[in-house]
Amino acid sequence: MNQSGSHGPGTNLDPWYDLYAERTAGLSASEVRALFAVASRPEVVSLAGGMPFVSALPTDLIQGAFEKVMREQGPRALQYGSGQGIPEIREHIHEIMDMEGIRASVDDVVVTTGSQHALELVSKIFLDPGDVVLAEGPSYVTALVIFKSFQATTQHVPMDEFGLIPQALRETIANLRAAGKRIKFLYTIPTFSNPAGVTLTWERRLEILEICRSNDILVLEDNPYGLLYFDAPPPQAMRSVDEDGVIYLGTFSKTLAPGFRVGWALAPHAIREKLILANEAAVLSPSSFSQLMINEYLNTADWRGQIDTFRGIYRDRRDAMLSALAEYLPQLSWTVPNGGFYVWVTLPDHLDSRAMLPRAVKELVAYTPGTAFYADGNGRNNMRLSFCYPTPDFIREGIRRLSIVINGELDLLNTFSQTSPLEILPAQQRIVSPPSNIG
Amino acid sequence: MNQSGSHGPGTNLDPWYDLYAERTAGLSASEVRALFAVASRPEVVSLAGGMPFVSALPTDLIQGAFEKVMREQGPRALQYGSGQGIPEIREHIHEIMDMEGIRASVDDVVVTTGSQHALELVSKIFLDPGDVVLAEGPSYVTALVIFKSFQATTQHVPMDEFGLIPQALRETIANLRAAGKRIKFLYTIPTFSNPAGVTLTWERRLEILEICRSNDILVLEDNPYGLLYFDAPPPQAMRSVDEDGVIYLGTFSKTLAPGFRVGWALAPHAIREKLILANEAAVLSPSSFSQLMINEYLNTADWRGQIDTFRGIYRDRRDAMLSALAEYLPQLSWTVPNGGFYVWVTLPDHLDSRAMLPRAVKELVAYTPGTAFYADGNGRNNMRLSFCYPTPDFIREGIRRLSIVINGELDLLNTFSQTSPLEILPAQQRIVSPPSNIG
Repeated sequence: MNQSGSHGPGTNLDPWYDLYAERTAGLSASEVRALFAVASRPEVVSLAGGMPFVSALPTDLIQGAFEKVMREQGPRALQYGSGQGIPEIREHIHEIMDMEGIRASVDDVVVTTGSQHALELVSKIFLDPGDVVLAEGPSYVTALVIFKSFQATTQHVPMDEFGLIPQALRETIANLRAAGKRIKFLYTIPTFSNPAGVTLTWERRLEILEICRSNDILVLEDNPYGLLYFDAPPPQAMRSVDEDGVIYLGTFSKTLAPGFRVGWALAPHAIREKLILANEAAVLSPSSFSQLMINEYLNTADWRGQIDTFRGIYRDRRDAMLSALAEYLPQLSWTVPNGGFYVWVTLPDHLDSRAMLPRAVKELVAYTPGTAFYADGNGRNNMRLSFCYPTPDFIREGIRRLSIVINGELDLLNTFSQTSPLEILPAQQRIVSPPSNIG
Repeated sequence: MNQSGSHGPGTNLDPWYDLYAERTAGLSASEVRALFAVASRPEVVSLAGGMPFVSALPTDLIQGAFEKVMREQGPRALQYGSGQGIPEIREHIHEIMDMEGIRASVDDVVVTTGSQHALELVSKIFLDPGDVVLAEGPSYVTALVIFKSFQATTQHVPMDEFGLIPQALRETIANLRAAGKRIKFLYTIPTFSNPAGVTLTWERRLEILEICRSNDILVLEDNPYGLLYFDAPPPQAMRSVDEDGVIYLGTFSKTLAPGFRVGWALAPHAIREKLILANEAAVLSPSSFSQLMINEYLNTADWRGQIDTFRGIYRDRRDAMLSALAEYLPQLSWTVPNGGFYVWVTLPDHLDSRAMLPRAVKELVAYTPGTAFYADGNGRNNMRLSFCYPTPDFIREGIRRLSIVINGELDLLNTFSQTSPLEILPAQQRIVSPPSNIG
């Protein structure tokens, strides 16, 4: 079929180009995607992904759950379920959220295909084109993609080592309102944030809830890492003090395994109804098989003990990463996470982490450039380092390789700054396409 | 939190009412939803749902697959996967589609969370507010919900016992174009359609593809039932003759089990890229656990033999339904499906299937009213009867109960038409709230 005659220029490769929805323009592949395919080779130490270390999960626990499910509820596991999720797993979710101080009705829990899908569904029911979502700067990359895919704009709010800064939130809201913008919600990962690895203090939680409440802004609290603390437990969830103004997202991906794709939203009553309808439209019902497997695992296995095991593993890896950074890259600065998966590194001003990535992959180490976590182009001299997946030895080796790359970049910078009065060029220009007036 | 002061009238029950996206107005609960909750009681014979009879699947086949997956690829099953789905299962999907005449590259298959999610993703990337989707009248209820949730309008095209009528399609397109409407795609279930149970002839398939091609309209071919034929195989898939103009949706929900939530889209190359990006945004990756389970089942079990088993079971149930209809309700007309799950029944003109449903549930039988399958209010004197789930004896008993309800309605109608010159009132008015001038 040749339809090129009826379509505009530049659409030769896709005869359906003119039919896409406007929102589809927001769905573009990450520039570093191809590179990550290379980075998945076994010889590369990847500090880039957010994959939990599922090998630490004894498979006999899963085996036991499977056998019991098939023996006792086989046909139910194989069948469609309800759009809200099965009642038993919602009871367990209730119990898990109780560990973070949340009192809720199991009726207000909606089981989703990972908490990612809860984020998509909340966005679908709230975001019109032109709306604004507030989010920490930096924030979770695939949340930014979702907001953009519904034609909303993400406005970042600055954070520091204590999390989102309340005064900055106030000012951002005032500025957006003055500009006539419609703010729908604040998306936040208050505990062991992705990518920054920082935790919002209790006092700030209360203050931010009050700011949002008084401005009629919903809070979307995303909490995948809250139970993976390394030292003292973090402050309780924001949802624990505000049941009407917070949609809380949780997941089994980090405390059990992402392969089941089971997460949830806890939402104010009226919103919950809309979420269920959106969930039914999108997938009819979340997987009964996955839900019953997890339910049985929670019934029979020592899942609290398993979370302790994960905590110990990730604590060791965090320690390995922090000590390797101190040893190999003392000239940089980084956050010190008390839980979760990530360290956020700040490079000297003139380094560009995205431009540097091909060189890093050549040295057999990968990370995620900081720009991925901003909707506004910031983060050029930042990178996210994940300590969740590689063993401590590999983490150490990865940081050593990274130091070769960064020190090489810094040497190059110093050479230029000593030999030339020209302004330092952005790293990308130097590496990808050296300007003709240099060297 | 009391925010009622800052919101408009009628929003007392939901303080966030003003924040919902415009599209959310399209997400409303079905009027018969509450009734179906009642209809799920075991004493009710439900001819309403579309649940496959998963008890016919030997659990040892699933058990064998599980053990092999956990033994050989446990960590992979528990981990995140790719947004496109794992390569091995895409190979199997390729093999399955080959049975319906489709030649394709496994690179163009995108695994989704049931084919329902493929439908949602296709709609997300194509539908802008105000767009038009063409669909058979009647069509699949949850497809209509999705299109509405993206603020598109469904325009039904008439069908007969040979499926969608090409000339009606031509006229509908011409009328819509004349009215300045933007048509995005034709959504069709050409084989053993839901709810009508009819199959598009081969000649019409070619004609409809040609009509869509010459009008730059994409075809979205939804084919959950194609392999569940009772007599001769149906015509090959529309995708088998047009790889550039058709997005094909398939699923394991009917040939294996819906509890895994695994389906797929086969799309033209450029569209496939967008689907993967949309899939990643929505769920990061479809469940690795479910995919590997199904992959291993397809590797090791006699899945073709299992489909034969399902065919035999559903054929017996179809036969039971058709013979019971002939015996108990000879005054009605209905379609004769050669595969799939459904019979579409036409009641005498003045009967209203939706208004009659509470009375049917009281008689311990349930069905789906015809209006559910139209976006335009049609279908009042139709109902969809599913023969997939109840045993032949229950189907027979269900139709017997239904005949009591329908004959009761007809008696009532006859009584009124003999005793009163008034126009017959709509059934809903009679049953739900009898007007004061009657009785």
